[in-house]
Amino acid sequence: MDKKTISLDHGSGGLASQKLIGELFLKYLTSPALASLEDCAVLDEQTGRIAMSTDSYVVTPLFFPGGNIGELAVNGTINDLAMRGARPIALSLALIIEEGFPLDDLEKIIQTIGRVSEEAGVAIVTGDTKVVPKGAADGLFINTTGIGVVAHHCNISGKRAKPGDKVIISGSLGDHGITIMSNQAGIDIGGDIASDTTSLHNLVASILEPETCDVHVMRDPTRGGLATTLCEIAQSSKVNIILEQDKLPIKPSVNTACEIIGLDPLYLANEGKCLIICTASRAEQLVKIMRQTPEGKDSAIIGTVSTVEQGKKPRVTLTTTIGGTRLLEPLTGEPLPRIC
Amino acid sequence: MDKKTISLDHGSGGLASQKLIGELFLKYLTSPALASLEDCAVLDEQTGRIAMSTDSYVVTPLFFPGGNIGELAVNGTINDLAMRGARPIALSLALIIEEGFPLDDLEKIIQTIGRVSEEAGVAIVTGDTKVVPKGAADGLFINTTGIGVVAHHCNISGKRAKPGDKVIISGSLGDHGITIMSNQAGIDIGGDIASDTTSLHNLVASILEPETCDVHVMRDPTRGGLATTLCEIAQSSKVNIILEQDKLPIKPSVNTACEIIGLDPLYLANEGKCLIICTASRAEQLVKIMRQTPEGKDSAIIGTVSTVEQGKKPRVTLTTTIGGTRLLEPLTGEPLPRIC
Repeated sequence: MDKKTISLDHGSGGLASQKLIGELFLKYLTSPALASLEDCAVLDEQTGRIAMSTDSYVVTPLFFPGGNIGELAVNGTINDLAMRGARPIALSLALIIEEGFPLDDLEKIIQTIGRVSEEAGVAIVTGDTKVVPKGAADGLFINTTGIGVVAHHCNISGKRAKPGDKVIISGSLGDHGITIMSNQAGIDIGGDIASDTTSLHNLVASILEPETCDVHVMRDPTRGGLATTLCEIAQSSKVNIILEQDKLPIKPSVNTACEIIGLDPLYLANEGKCLIICTASRAEQLVKIMRQTPEGKDSAIIGTVSTVEQGKKPRVTLTTTIGGTRLLEPLTGEPLPRIC
Repeated sequence: MDKKTISLDHGSGGLASQKLIGELFLKYLTSPALASLEDCAVLDEQTGRIAMSTDSYVVTPLFFPGGNIGELAVNGTINDLAMRGARPIALSLALIIEEGFPLDDLEKIIQTIGRVSEEAGVAIVTGDTKVVPKGAADGLFINTTGIGVVAHHCNISGKRAKPGDKVIISGSLGDHGITIMSNQAGIDIGGDIASDTTSLHNLVASILEPETCDVHVMRDPTRGGLATTLCEIAQSSKVNIILEQDKLPIKPSVNTACEIIGLDPLYLANEGKCLIICTASRAEQLVKIMRQTPEGKDSAIIGTVSTVEQGKKPRVTLTTTIGGTRLLEPLTGEPLPRIC
């Protein structure tokens, strides 16, 4: 067994696998369920509807300004659960590793996963490790799947945007996408640009009001960015959505980098931002609460939901700073691979 | 968009992704939760402890005698849940696809996943699709994660084998492993050899007795085979396990193929077999019940659990047909890549 890199027998299910799990994984991932080394975790009984979400992470590079693939894998799946109003309770972790992958890098990533999941209070309870021969994968792919509990009766869903509702975003747009894409392109855009990866379940818990259910839609605008996410919601809810350009929180450095590379921040992935559509009368209050949290300090109302004109299709438009109207369509034909 | 193969924009989260999901995935995967196209499924409330298990499937070739990667992905995760005594209730499905992968093959695999999950009564409720550039993955990798409910209070675990207990296997050993390995080696072993992939949760449901909890351990001996799995159990439970060679159900064709390739069927992966360790007084009755099911028709008592001699380490031995004793150690140093 080569001490410095991953070899095929680390994935064989035999002694080397046990050693890797015992000496590396369990050093940083400390839940009793995982430590029991069963093929399946058995958790406590829960009260409420069960939520489930899965995501594979194939980002390149694995390490980038603001984090690494480990942070994305934990935060991304926690956020998908949170966006349906669920309290995340457990994560699974499945790794596909290329033979020859540096053990040092694996250790850094597992350490990150341990730290981030502990900070979030959501344990890794079960896992799987596969090793494929050199050339059969590019470094490391991670799948995390999460389960959560919806302990209230609100139905938070992409279908529930209503005319009159307000659209809120929890902070600046495009930070993650521009970080990865400039890195992939080998462009040093410098400045304060870094991934925004963070978990949003505490932010969400602070704004949910189970009695009124006035938060109608929540989404984290990842692949496809804010514009594609809003197009999906408009289509599902059969509404129009109108954004106001001068309300959109976009960092000047991100705007500049987007101009250089030729990208639109509205289509760039975010990994720590929450889009909320809620009853108009609650919007100001929600933004006030969100601004008191570190992950929501730049929250803003950025748009309004309206009725679709008879015979027309639902659409998302941007009212520009100079008073024009720009139609926002879903991302199409632009391959943006391995952004998350 | 090339109609015949997967392109990068199928994984972008934009229009091409939506089209792939709508036209291919939802054609075969029909759960309402999945069809709602949220990033997270919300299921009904459940009564009982929640079980969770994850596995990535990287098998090569993707299609083999007895099934394809889709069957493995559904059955394998269902089985891991069943082995803890859980009733599987939902699966997630996450695909990592290499650019250029044939759409026809993807359709066949998704169709299989739909059929097998429907037959098993366990729906795919949420999913994820990532596409990586040509060369960054080898064809297709699948992760399935499952959740289940443990509706009784028995603790079925690798730690619970007790001296005096009997060891049962639900059928013939090594079928899956020899099928894949001979295929990988380009050897046509012919005959009746095919993967044994099947789901075992109905078999398990037929033998669990929540009042007596006399099934102590259940495991599906996949990677590392029966021998490695028993070594893990012996170590966790701090017991010896003695197998009887002439009780082991191994197909003559598998034995022959193993001799040709130079493999030991006790170390080969199974994908549709259940190893059970239970109170001695219940063993005969369990085998009788199991033999009445299609997946357990070749069930047999194959060994006994005994006490570890003072000062010695737990060990697994095989009493050979001629009366000798062979020590079975965990799989070590033998890379058996991409068997599941």
